[in-house]
Amino acid sequence: MKLLEDRVLKDGHVRGAGILKVDSFLNHQMDVALFVQMAQEWKRLFSDCTVTKILTIESSGIGIACITGLEFGCPVIFAKKTGTLNISDNVYTTKVYSYTHNRMYDVIVSKEFLKADDHILLIDDFLANGAALLGLADLVKNAGATLVGAGVAIEKAFQPGGEMLRSRGIRIESLARIKSMSETGGIEFC
Amino acid sequence: MKLLEDRVLKDGHVRGAGILKVDSFLNHQMDVALFVQMAQEWKRLFSDCTVTKILTIESSGIGIACITGLEFGCPVIFAKKTGTLNISDNVYTTKVYSYTHNRMYDVIVSKEFLKADDHILLIDDFLANGAALLGLADLVKNAGATLVGAGVAIEKAFQPGGEMLRSRGIRIESLARIKSMSETGGIEFC
Repeated sequence: MKLLEDRVLKDGHVRGAGILKVDSFLNHQMDVALFVQMAQEWKRLFSDCTVTKILTIESSGIGIACITGLEFGCPVIFAKKTGTLNISDNVYTTKVYSYTHNRMYDVIVSKEFLKADDHILLIDDFLANGAALLGLADLVKNAGATLVGAGVAIEKAFQPGGEMLRSRGIRIESLARIKSMSETGGIEFC
Repeated sequence: MKLLEDRVLKDGHVRGAGILKVDSFLNHQMDVALFVQMAQEWKRLFSDCTVTKILTIESSGIGIACITGLEFGCPVIFAKKTGTLNISDNVYTTKVYSYTHNRMYDVIVSKEFLKADDHILLIDDFLANGAALLGLADLVKNAGATLVGAGVAIEKAFQPGGEMLRSRGIRIESLARIKSMSETGGIEFC
């Protein structure tokens, strides 16, 4: 999606070790008008699919997912990260390793909101190692629901997550796929 | 706002110790179509005000704030909770006590996104003790920005937060104000 690529080039900042700061428009300050255009693009890409609910993970996916929910006309669920082992019987649970925080989280979603007849579209801001989306896909599987695919804003295509998820048969629609990036060499898209 | 009050009566569940579960439509599964109507109501209530940015706190305020941002036509910022003491010079910081998690958080927002000429509307899902909104108001004050007020979805008016914030001159517009609630006696609005 050229609009998002242009915005990444304009306002994104590459930091050492594969870190892309896009917190002026994507995941700290949020340009919600941009989110509408991203949502419209996912709606176009997944126009052949039934989507009954959108699932994301806290925190930075929530805003994008909500505006995508408006576009699809369906409710949005965010899976919660929890550090406790106090998991009740009423939730589906999986484990997700956070590379940002260098720790493992239990990630939960209430069984009440993920049903076997649901068709779930995952939404997240970033795809790098794929741990978060794999965890969300696991929750969908546990519920016996249908996984439609995943809409990703920015994919770091030089990291293994995209290939790992696609090799498992998960449809990924990334709006900006970064082939390479560096502090000195800038950002190149696929 | 009758629409939200009716929804609380229909889908909310009172649990012991002043806990109201509204996670089927507000803060786990999110009814984004309802959020649009809430946003329109805040837009009407604050129609006399200039709003340049909306500020909320992760996680459960983000979805509501983003859709409110669409209505106001402005960017949305979410303040981040952090457990670390590694606070950089580039952020405004305050401390917020979470009654839900029974712990103190450092809450930060990048200085880049809160400026002295900003007119900030706070948005959050709940107002009970007022700790989160007081923390956000503190961040706005640190930035030298103008605090327009706060839009709250559900205020527990039997807890002290609303009075505490209003006594400090902060304008609060709550869409549903609960006067009392109990597992046996149901929910009564102000």
